[in-house]
Amino acid sequence: MAATVTRRIFAEEVFDRVGEEVRLKGWVYHLRVLGKTAFIILRDCTGEVQCVLATESLKEHRLKVEDVVEIRGAVRAEPRARTGCEVDVSEIGVLNRAGQSLPFQSAANVESVGLETLLQYRPLSLRTEAVGDIFRVQAAILAAFRDALNRRRFTEIATSKIVSGGTEGGSNLFEIQYFDRVAYLAQSPQFYKEHGVAGLERVYETGHVYRAEPHASSRHLTEYYSLDVEFGFIDGPEDVIQFERELLTDMFDSLNRNYPEVIRRYREDLLPSMLGVPCWEFAACLEMLRTDFGRTDLEDDLDPLAERQLCERAARESGVSAVFVLGFPLAARPFYTAPRGSHGAAGSFDLLFQGLEITTGGQRLHRRDDLESALRSRSIDPANFESHLAMFDLGMPPHGGFAIGLERLTCQVLHLPNVRQAVLYPRDRYKITP
Amino acid sequence: MAATVTRRIFAEEVFDRVGEEVRLKGWVYHLRVLGKTAFIILRDCTGEVQCVLATESLKEHRLKVEDVVEIRGAVRAEPRARTGCEVDVSEIGVLNRAGQSLPFQSAANVESVGLETLLQYRPLSLRTEAVGDIFRVQAAILAAFRDALNRRRFTEIATSKIVSGGTEGGSNLFEIQYFDRVAYLAQSPQFYKEHGVAGLERVYETGHVYRAEPHASSRHLTEYYSLDVEFGFIDGPEDVIQFERELLTDMFDSLNRNYPEVIRRYREDLLPSMLGVPCWEFAACLEMLRTDFGRTDLEDDLDPLAERQLCERAARESGVSAVFVLGFPLAARPFYTAPRGSHGAAGSFDLLFQGLEITTGGQRLHRRDDLESALRSRSIDPANFESHLAMFDLGMPPHGGFAIGLERLTCQVLHLPNVRQAVLYPRDRYKITP
Repeated sequence: MAATVTRRIFAEEVFDRVGEEVRLKGWVYHLRVLGKTAFIILRDCTGEVQCVLATESLKEHRLKVEDVVEIRGAVRAEPRARTGCEVDVSEIGVLNRAGQSLPFQSAANVESVGLETLLQYRPLSLRTEAVGDIFRVQAAILAAFRDALNRRRFTEIATSKIVSGGTEGGSNLFEIQYFDRVAYLAQSPQFYKEHGVAGLERVYETGHVYRAEPHASSRHLTEYYSLDVEFGFIDGPEDVIQFERELLTDMFDSLNRNYPEVIRRYREDLLPSMLGVPCWEFAACLEMLRTDFGRTDLEDDLDPLAERQLCERAARESGVSAVFVLGFPLAARPFYTAPRGSHGAAGSFDLLFQGLEITTGGQRLHRRDDLESALRSRSIDPANFESHLAMFDLGMPPHGGFAIGLERLTCQVLHLPNVRQAVLYPRDRYKITP
Repeated sequence: MAATVTRRIFAEEVFDRVGEEVRLKGWVYHLRVLGKTAFIILRDCTGEVQCVLATESLKEHRLKVEDVVEIRGAVRAEPRARTGCEVDVSEIGVLNRAGQSLPFQSAANVESVGLETLLQYRPLSLRTEAVGDIFRVQAAILAAFRDALNRRRFTEIATSKIVSGGTEGGSNLFEIQYFDRVAYLAQSPQFYKEHGVAGLERVYETGHVYRAEPHASSRHLTEYYSLDVEFGFIDGPEDVIQFERELLTDMFDSLNRNYPEVIRRYREDLLPSMLGVPCWEFAACLEMLRTDFGRTDLEDDLDPLAERQLCERAARESGVSAVFVLGFPLAARPFYTAPRGSHGAAGSFDLLFQGLEITTGGQRLHRRDDLESALRSRSIDPANFESHLAMFDLGMPPHGGFAIGLERLTCQVLHLPNVRQAVLYPRDRYKITP
């Protein structure tokens, strides 16, 4: 095909070009051959367009599904075509051939394709509508998260993932060979986002964090994408909870507005308002679990079954399958956690959504003395954390925040059963490719 | 101070509350004592407000600069105050004390504070207007980049930073101890973003990448934040260059609109349109450098001085200190680079902006055969890259893209001399704290 200056147009633009010659590029999504006439459904990042040509010409080009092509032709109104018009092909150029034997096609029903195959052939699985939609929705979640925070005076920060130690005492850290010494992959931007609060009052970060998680379950990854929020001048953990209610409601509204068909394809209803999600004390939750579900085996933490049971009860009471659980035992939470009252409860919470924990958050200690005591009570020498503690002398407001796991949130939004469906390239103990 | 349900308001809201009782929280930014009356300039993430109280009361609370406070009082119109009103303090609560001896104050002129001190005390340096502005502008660059791409049908992706090998042959990689084997930190999302194109056509990613860079110069980091773009169906590298011209122009427009005062404080003029930035062939650049600057020492690459010299010439010719250099020697570029013509030039480019390379990009090879030949010509066995090459059988469009270093771009936007000024927590060979 001769070089030309004609601008390529997207499939969605064809509709506005009836009567004109156009230049299209995309993938052969579907081929239909009817005697002398053949149809190519061409797809690009904006949608599909039906192109018509002589069957003979199709054969001459040996076109097949997934081939990458350029098509020139005239747009004609055609009420029977899905978009109301089709393109009479005058010229076809094959830009690149797909292989002869693909594991599946982009028009396939992905439910008939195994997860391992979808992961192994990411380019092809992303080209399917169903899998492509998962990652378009994930991108929309990210955009909605950042937009909602930018509107609330937050500043986005990017903090180092190469650190000299852990935020939670040193377990589950990956070691990096860093020139002639050892460094670690950050488990969380926790310390940095607290420092950010002392500087900018309201900060957030979106990025990868790392846990040398020995389990490879349907909900664990060694690398996940964390949506981290931290802000100053709170009165208590309830402020953080209320903030997350409003944030998620904004985000869900945006998803409902921009992706209603996709959301409805993956779940029965649009996403709920989170403004009425209740907040239950941890001790009360144990009591409910005992009364409602006969659970007498829980003591200082919830398990996945208990998370589902509490959401079930919340759904009955408030109509939304979600609950904030506040006041976990302080001893089970990181040293920087603020206490709640004086009976060993923590000013920290989990958000359970549709049976899965998608957020951990809470109020943090903001006074150096309190942090030192908390470290000592865990038999850690405060000197090990001196470079962090020194930041608390610079004017640190009372503060709190939370982190949402992007993959888990994507799963819950779209009712996906395995977290690996919501990661382009999942990493677990056994998997570092592709 | 007793607990209450009065909502805390931001400093910027005071203006609308003349005659009302308000509750403010923030840092003591400045103190002025005049006999019986004292003034506190309170700062929060939205700005400043002047609060008035009896000097005696100030002394009683032992208030000092950088202390974290809550103030209640009545808003009164006061034409002499910068914001047109001030707050008559009725109650002060100290939420947290700053230390007695701080290395500098948030009202300090940061030019008198060394870079090492600014890095060591990030919370305090971020609280200064000058340093805070660097990171507010950096966040705005990120937001503008993503917005411009979202409007152009790109999908944001997040790809793994834990990889089994390098994209450029294996040098400068950091090793991770990954359970019982070795993995590496990703140098670039290059392969993944190309796979993304084969699935979604247009993708971008914003995130950290890693280079075990042995130099610790004013322009090198071991961890930097990369703005990666890749898209399909290009006709040649000129399409990628034109796309970057338009993208940067959009981004600069947005910065000029939203941060005009900050931009003007850091540089003489607002940011330029990039639409007229010329594209010069590498060979022609060598010739210009010889003619204009007597440079006879350059052969197959540019050096920092040459980058400055070319920008100087571009500024003379087009009014903007920027130039795309296209057609570097193919042998010096990664194996996936598309050739430009048949004389050993590459279809890849650098963007030099105000004397510094801020982007590398170009067209990539999109046919498996060509990639295999390119690997062999570099004495690399294609079998080592089989898992990557297999993706080129799935329907890979002609494609290209580029990456912008966020820190370098921030430096050039604000005329900062050292890349470390544009990173919250810089990492180099010698530095992994704070």
